[in-house]
Amino acid sequence: MPRLSNKGLQMPESPIRKLVPFAEAAKKLGRTVYHLNIGQPDIKTPEIALNAVKNSTIDVLAYSRSEGSEVYRSKIANYYKSHNLHVDADDIIVTTGGSEALLFAMGSITDPGDEVIIPEPFYANYNGFATASGVKVVPVVSKFEDNFALPPIEEFEKLITPKTKAILICNPGNPTGYLYTEDEMAKLSAIVKEHDLFLISDEVYREFAYDGLQHHSVLKDDTLKDNAIVIDSVSKRYSMCGARIGCIVSRNKNLIQTALKFAQARLSPPTLAQIASEAALETPQSYFDDVKSEYTDRRNTLVSELEKIEGVKVAKPKGAFYCIAQLPVDNAEDFARWILEDFHHNNETIMVAPAAGFYSSKGMGKNEVRIAYVLKEADLVRAAEILKVALEEYPN
Amino acid sequence: MPRLSNKGLQMPESPIRKLVPFAEAAKKLGRTVYHLNIGQPDIKTPEIALNAVKNSTIDVLAYSRSEGSEVYRSKIANYYKSHNLHVDADDIIVTTGGSEALLFAMGSITDPGDEVIIPEPFYANYNGFATASGVKVVPVVSKFEDNFALPPIEEFEKLITPKTKAILICNPGNPTGYLYTEDEMAKLSAIVKEHDLFLISDEVYREFAYDGLQHHSVLKDDTLKDNAIVIDSVSKRYSMCGARIGCIVSRNKNLIQTALKFAQARLSPPTLAQIASEAALETPQSYFDDVKSEYTDRRNTLVSELEKIEGVKVAKPKGAFYCIAQLPVDNAEDFARWILEDFHHNNETIMVAPAAGFYSSKGMGKNEVRIAYVLKEADLVRAAEILKVALEEYPN
Repeated sequence: MPRLSNKGLQMPESPIRKLVPFAEAAKKLGRTVYHLNIGQPDIKTPEIALNAVKNSTIDVLAYSRSEGSEVYRSKIANYYKSHNLHVDADDIIVTTGGSEALLFAMGSITDPGDEVIIPEPFYANYNGFATASGVKVVPVVSKFEDNFALPPIEEFEKLITPKTKAILICNPGNPTGYLYTEDEMAKLSAIVKEHDLFLISDEVYREFAYDGLQHHSVLKDDTLKDNAIVIDSVSKRYSMCGARIGCIVSRNKNLIQTALKFAQARLSPPTLAQIASEAALETPQSYFDDVKSEYTDRRNTLVSELEKIEGVKVAKPKGAFYCIAQLPVDNAEDFARWILEDFHHNNETIMVAPAAGFYSSKGMGKNEVRIAYVLKEADLVRAAEILKVALEEYPN
Repeated sequence: MPRLSNKGLQMPESPIRKLVPFAEAAKKLGRTVYHLNIGQPDIKTPEIALNAVKNSTIDVLAYSRSEGSEVYRSKIANYYKSHNLHVDADDIIVTTGGSEALLFAMGSITDPGDEVIIPEPFYANYNGFATASGVKVVPVVSKFEDNFALPPIEEFEKLITPKTKAILICNPGNPTGYLYTEDEMAKLSAIVKEHDLFLISDEVYREFAYDGLQHHSVLKDDTLKDNAIVIDSVSKRYSMCGARIGCIVSRNKNLIQTALKFAQARLSPPTLAQIASEAALETPQSYFDDVKSEYTDRRNTLVSELEKIEGVKVAKPKGAFYCIAQLPVDNAEDFARWILEDFHHNNETIMVAPAAGFYSSKGMGKNEVRIAYVLKEADLVRAAEILKVALEEYPN
């Protein structure tokens, strides 16, 4: 029997997927499952994007350029300019989702054994990409009590070694919903310049900033030209998760040139999805206004409903569409499984993501869950009710 | 200035892309360039595939399952069954092109420093994926004089070390057009079983077998159940290179389970392209008969036209749509660049792929080029004429 790789054996299983069989079993029993576990919004994809594909007249579905079509990249550059972020088409490589942008970034800047510092809790798939690249994730704890604000910069300083290649942030954060302030971004800017590190900023939720707060991109800071790498994606912005189109953006020419070699090896990003994504750039502002207003309402409803439940605390999110909630249970994973397997309320139940999988440090987040507010308000109210009853009945 | 990775710096540039700027410059001068350099067929994509996307009624372009939709995977399994290859839906993970299938295979079976033996010349991007995974490609020379038949199995034996994890073949071969015989496949089967290696078989050109010859898949051999990994793709089969849909297939459950973790980290393959690819499976047999007959004619025309040119030799291809030709020049890369930069015949010129980039051993293939017969016969005749004149005028 041939041997698998150590890397393959160590690849983490998605913390969300582990519970999928239990959700499927619940559905087979005729139960309704409210999915608060994944970031798959129910928001409609802009028609302009879907129509572009329907009206396409191509008769050979050919490769695009490895870096994405010139026209599309120019339009993406214009999108950034409309956000006062000054990048050119040549600073952009179109990727197969933000996932591939991360993979290209990791590959371009890290060798096996290198380290990347990431405030935890963080998007669980960072672990997967790090393991695939043989890179060590060095977590720095951001605190529930601070709504997961940036940890003190001295905590980062302590963790920097000759192997450290980058600091990776997600802004606004998945799973925390935290939106970094201008002051926090300035601190990160200073530390990466001082230590010649890259600052990778996953900004796929850029537009999802609430309460009138502004998003501060790493691309805004001209002094970060050589250090900043942006991971971006159409997935959440236009509710096009299945398109699998994203991009890696940097004004560091060497970085882009190196990432391009990874892009060439895989030939090209998907052509049909690029047609949709290019058209999506013409989505009217009213779409985003409506979406933002919808998510603000959902967040307000969810947080206030959750806070009504005895023993439940919520780290108040300012962006994206997730929040971390502390539950009055010892082990949120056992609880999440129990609600699917052994509980229902009027034949309905909920699926949440145990938060431990979003931490790299063992033992952290054991009583926390990530809740995605990607459902309609009425469903969120009902989901919170189910959670309340479940907590009452749970034989903790 | 932050440092890039050694891996990133070592990533090979595509041997085809290097000449692209010269082709673009020639076009700017108003010259027609016949592209014999890339495997982008001019064959039309089946209408049934494109129409499925146009008629789709989805309004949220959502993630699919990481392993691809259950329905699509079942249909792929049926496709294999129609080729007498017995695999189940669970033996298949849908990937973003054959490229990603290779990446998942490499990741699942190799750690940095491990070795994979590949008959050379081979598809150049194998180098890219190996470099990205920190894996050493160990080439075994297949000979032009033998039309690139499988090298003697003792040559493989000599190269096997404790670090060897797999033998990787492309069948039929890009860039060689060679189709492995049943006897050759039996020899490969025996050696990988004896040494507990994986046998990765890139079979994306499965249908492109000419002269009544049969394709022998690694999936046919039941004794290879645990060793065989197939890389597949819709790109060439349905002229859908831009879809970026492929799959990894293996009856080794542990391998598939491990590859699935890589698949989960990148969330899902592209949804629109899966709709097209699923529909493409309904393409009528007449489409393939026409395509095969067209490529047979193109191959016959190209090879006979090339063989008329003094000093040009061709390794006769039996499958895929490439051939390797030896040219009467010292350095085929210099020549390929010269035809684009300093030569034209009635304002027309050609672009070919220097073959050295398809070898891993330094110095091999220096007087060889890869020619893709993806153009209409008349264009191939004209391209051969241009090559003839160019060789006469070349100041070698």
